[in-house]
Amino acid sequence: MADKPLIFITNDDGYNARGIKLLEDILKPFGNIVVVAPNVEMSGKSHAITGGKPLRLECIEKREGFEVYSLEGTPVDCVKMAFDKVLNRKPDYLFAGINHGSNLSINTIYSGTMGAVMEGCSEGVTSVGFSLCDNDKQASLDDCKDLVEKISARVISKGLPKEVCLNVNFPTGKMKGVKVGHQAKGYWSEDFTTGEVEGCKTIFWLGGEYHCTDDSPNADWNIAQEGYASIVPMQVDFTAWKHIEEVSSNFIDL
Amino acid sequence: MADKPLIFITNDDGYNARGIKLLEDILKPFGNIVVVAPNVEMSGKSHAITGGKPLRLECIEKREGFEVYSLEGTPVDCVKMAFDKVLNRKPDYLFAGINHGSNLSINTIYSGTMGAVMEGCSEGVTSVGFSLCDNDKQASLDDCKDLVEKISARVISKGLPKEVCLNVNFPTGKMKGVKVGHQAKGYWSEDFTTGEVEGCKTIFWLGGEYHCTDDSPNADWNIAQEGYASIVPMQVDFTAWKHIEEVSSNFIDL
Repeated sequence: MADKPLIFITNDDGYNARGIKLLEDILKPFGNIVVVAPNVEMSGKSHAITGGKPLRLECIEKREGFEVYSLEGTPVDCVKMAFDKVLNRKPDYLFAGINHGSNLSINTIYSGTMGAVMEGCSEGVTSVGFSLCDNDKQASLDDCKDLVEKISARVISKGLPKEVCLNVNFPTGKMKGVKVGHQAKGYWSEDFTTGEVEGCKTIFWLGGEYHCTDDSPNADWNIAQEGYASIVPMQVDFTAWKHIEEVSSNFIDL
Repeated sequence: MADKPLIFITNDDGYNARGIKLLEDILKPFGNIVVVAPNVEMSGKSHAITGGKPLRLECIEKREGFEVYSLEGTPVDCVKMAFDKVLNRKPDYLFAGINHGSNLSINTIYSGTMGAVMEGCSEGVTSVGFSLCDNDKQASLDDCKDLVEKISARVISKGLPKEVCLNVNFPTGKMKGVKVGHQAKGYWSEDFTTGEVEGCKTIFWLGGEYHCTDDSPNADWNIAQEGYASIVPMQVDFTAWKHIEEVSSNFIDL
């Protein structure tokens, strides 16, 4: 089995989620599989890491070519734990998901699944995140199965550009095909629900609504709205390169 | 006071940290101040949000032109709470910090302080994060005080390009001036400490070492190493724009 690629899988819905189980099944023919995923749901954890608190790792299943571990930590903790202590090396590929819920547009920055993908990318590993645009944990994954397999096969055969990872999102229902595009401009408007007062504290619950502000047909949000699977190449670099000169001229005399 | 700008302040070290107290003092002359910051340290929380759990808000101090609230939530929760429920509007400016610890290079992606700045930016608010490159919570902030004031004054007088925020990092000691640059390429290598075994679980503690892989003199890590304050214009867009065409040609037939 030594010449089979080593495929690492994680997610933010937890090691027992339906999406990750399907992803494991799809990827088994492609290589040796090691899963390290959170013990509970870690949606919205972004790129958070756990410092100053213990991380508990448990082996759930271990047989030739297939291992599953659960970790009391974030998705990014899972990646770091896998590379350092479970695999004792970098894997050949990192696949995350299949996430229950959209990681289109700005959702990618809140996403624990995409946090794991960006972490893998930052450490030089070919990394891909898959998400189904339906928050219902019981939503059918049937329609995206074929494309998860085809995209994974293509990534394994052709690789990705250096320092680039993929954010793949599937709209619900039958799809028309795939389109490669860019992160849509958009934002969430908050709408907290106010609960009771507890002494000197007021209790709130986070809620909100997404607004797309991007008209481009190549924006990932719009690609999914049109019924295509969206593939966005991403990088771990937040620099606003186009604005360095302008900002420089405003601050350089300080 | 109605024509004074409304300045929102947050951080990830907690509302009581030395860095945020100094930032409040520096910014008071520039406008009306509202602080909403975590009740405890939230370093490494990145862009995490708290869903499915209550967020408790407490007013710590309230007088004409100056209000402080603590929130049992992440830095990004603080921004959302402030905009929706405390200010009931978007502030004119968001300043975060002064963070105890570097947010140079890839540290920006783990940082709760920069998570708050990116959230403000995503919602159209002129946003700036300040960090001192010293993890010691008792490190002197004296040497960066003057530059925090000058950079803030410049941001308030000149503004920032649309959809751009600033990540400002100060090396320790006397500085030679400021330089505007870009996020350095780099990564963290993990080095978990293994603790005892607890039933079927093994306990680990996260540790690691940063490695800069960027030779550019304009990389923020190198700017700070040279003794300058580093200013990096950032954007909330992870798209690897240069690679869209290449990736598209590899996947479009699926």
